[in-house]
Amino acid sequence: MPQHPFVPVIPAGGAGTRLWPLSRRSRPKFLLDLTGAGRSLLQGTVERLAPLADGPPIVVTGAAHEAAVREQVGGAGAARVVAEPSPRNSMPAIALAAALVEREQPEAVIGSFAADHLVEDPEAFARAVAIARETAERGYLVTLGIAPTHPATGFGYIEQSAAEGPTAPGGSAGGPGALPPGAHPVTRFVEKPDRERAEQFLATGRFLWNAGMFVVRASVLLDELAVQIPSLAAGAREIAAAHGTAQHQDVLERVWPRLTAIAIDHALAEPLAADGRVAVVPAAFGWDDVGDFAVLARQLREHHAAPAQRDGDESDGGEGSDRRSGSGGSGGSGGNGGSDGSDGSDVRVLGSATVDAVASRATVYGSTDRHIALVGLDGISIVDTEDALLVLADEQAQDLSVLVARLEQRGLGHLR
Amino acid sequence: MPQHPFVPVIPAGGAGTRLWPLSRRSRPKFLLDLTGAGRSLLQGTVERLAPLADGPPIVVTGAAHEAAVREQVGGAGAARVVAEPSPRNSMPAIALAAALVEREQPEAVIGSFAADHLVEDPEAFARAVAIARETAERGYLVTLGIAPTHPATGFGYIEQSAAEGPTAPGGSAGGPGALPPGAHPVTRFVEKPDRERAEQFLATGRFLWNAGMFVVRASVLLDELAVQIPSLAAGAREIAAAHGTAQHQDVLERVWPRLTAIAIDHALAEPLAADGRVAVVPAAFGWDDVGDFAVLARQLREHHAAPAQRDGDESDGGEGSDRRSGSGGSGGSGGNGGSDGSDGSDVRVLGSATVDAVASRATVYGSTDRHIALVGLDGISIVDTEDALLVLADEQAQDLSVLVARLEQRGLGHLR
Repeated sequence: MPQHPFVPVIPAGGAGTRLWPLSRRSRPKFLLDLTGAGRSLLQGTVERLAPLADGPPIVVTGAAHEAAVREQVGGAGAARVVAEPSPRNSMPAIALAAALVEREQPEAVIGSFAADHLVEDPEAFARAVAIARETAERGYLVTLGIAPTHPATGFGYIEQSAAEGPTAPGGSAGGPGALPPGAHPVTRFVEKPDRERAEQFLATGRFLWNAGMFVVRASVLLDELAVQIPSLAAGAREIAAAHGTAQHQDVLERVWPRLTAIAIDHALAEPLAADGRVAVVPAAFGWDDVGDFAVLARQLREHHAAPAQRDGDESDGGEGSDRRSGSGGSGGSGGNGGSDGSDGSDVRVLGSATVDAVASRATVYGSTDRHIALVGLDGISIVDTEDALLVLADEQAQDLSVLVARLEQRGLGHLR
Repeated sequence: MPQHPFVPVIPAGGAGTRLWPLSRRSRPKFLLDLTGAGRSLLQGTVERLAPLADGPPIVVTGAAHEAAVREQVGGAGAARVVAEPSPRNSMPAIALAAALVEREQPEAVIGSFAADHLVEDPEAFARAVAIARETAERGYLVTLGIAPTHPATGFGYIEQSAAEGPTAPGGSAGGPGALPPGAHPVTRFVEKPDRERAEQFLATGRFLWNAGMFVVRASVLLDELAVQIPSLAAGAREIAAAHGTAQHQDVLERVWPRLTAIAIDHALAEPLAADGRVAVVPAAFGWDDVGDFAVLARQLREHHAAPAQRDGDESDGGEGSDRRSGSGGSGGSGGNGGSDGSDGSDVRVLGSATVDAVASRATVYGSTDRHIALVGLDGISIVDTEDALLVLADEQAQDLSVLVARLEQRGLGHLR
């Protein structure tokens, strides 16, 4: 059983152009309710972590989103919100949160989890976190590794050692101890592979998806960071030390811009893995990073928005020309609806849009009062907003970033 | 050479749900500029016919559209606009126009042409009309038959006699005389066939598309109608006789609702064809009824809206993941634009919408100020209006009518 207090850290940043125009620079993905659950991804993340925590989760977000984040999760001590003056990647954000925790609870374990991912099975998630906490107490940097379900090319991978047990000498001063059951040594982190490599990875049975979830004692994280990038650890601790004092804002403004902008993977995870100081807890809890519209459409189809049956108005297909005419339609009810008509239509709706469809498999995101009509679509996502309309073939969802990148040069930067 | 005055008649009616939501009950297809030509289909029809006419074309339209029609074609005597109190199909509309013409110019030939069709080659059209006029002067009901380019199932067909020359005894009292070169006897009119029959029709070489174009002496039309449906001919003549008098409105309101609501094909063309009194002038002048979005997309692709080359911003495809990324886009310039980028995108835009596309073949109709983004589409039409959005696979364009029919029962009748 874990002994030390546990404080979740939730970095809430990232531009997220892959769900444009649903997500915008001013309204990033983590602030959105993407599954019709009645809560944003950030709120879902806080709600998932709060029961496991011994203190309110710390959300580190950009100054631009501080107000919106406070509104969503700042109420009644649900979360502590820390605003970064400027985005400097994940390591400074997590280091600052670790330093704040370390100052208040020197023995505490922190767990860093992205604000904009989905977890279908919170109980399995809680079990994995418990093992990770126990492992972290023994001095490891611990990551949760997702059991891969297909040879994805959109994620990094974690290779676990073929052998169980510690790879570093147990009990050495400051070094990690023996691994508890369910935790495995990590050999290396691998960046997003191509398809062929991804298939090779899966064939070995040793590779897991890197979901960017790290559990570690706050002091271990900062001490190890002090070895790798001393100025970054010292800066985070300096800002934390000034927290709550009159000097805090001055210190923050002076120190923060000088912190090395780097991801935790490169700053800590990769070098420590090479040293045998990283462990992974393999887990399967229905994780999804909701990375693009293809993923989101699949999510809505598989886990959310059960298709509503039509009210049986077959007779209106009176044109006599088409057997698919008795079809499906739905008005989303603030959350999501769907249709699964006799013509094989399967349309999921996120938002309040009224949608009617003939012979279509599609996903609609819309809350304007425009009526949306679909005919003969197969695997299409439609995002209807007041100032931008996207129509996208799910299987080419990855091409969207090209298009969003072009907005600026077309003089449409305000739409990002 | 034709001897008698020629007066075009343009029935401008029809609900036209097949181009919804571009066309609406309140803004039917003939009032729209569907090709970016800078004029509506009705204006194009008037402009095409005016040079062939010996008097202003008569546009017969519904009371609901009278004001819009006058605004488009009523100026400076371009056309005479006659409003029907209620829609009663094509025969009463054409009979009324014929009676008005007959009263003023008893020898005149009228030619009835739909207000919402396209003609690519006006000179070939004019040549066909000249032959039809000459044939009509000899007492025939003449139709222009379109040389079929494929076994269409969306049109009726006209079967011409295998033999040239008159099938009715020439010179008989009131009967038609010999046919001039270029005109052929009609054996029968055939309703829309299925695919198999359409292919058989084409194989014979004797079948032409029925474009609903009729040329006939006004008095012949009314005299023949007086034989087939006496009350209809008498009613039309009664209304025409009251034209310009104080009683006109009273007569119109009393007589019009009692006129048999029937199409000219059933009222006259079919029975007269059985009597050998119908002739056809086969012609090929790039006729198109712009029947649905699939047809319109093909029209725009083949004849209008030459694709604009992009301004060469290939470098922004910097994600490196997709060779199709250097793509096309366009902001339509009030008329239409298009794109044909290096990624194979071919997007035609009708309206002022700004559109950007990656790897897409699509047609966009839009004049809202919403930016429209397309990814990976193939053969999709998008109609973006303030109150309704349609996304449609061109190859299932015919299914649209099912969807429009459902608007009423969904409480969205105002969108029709």
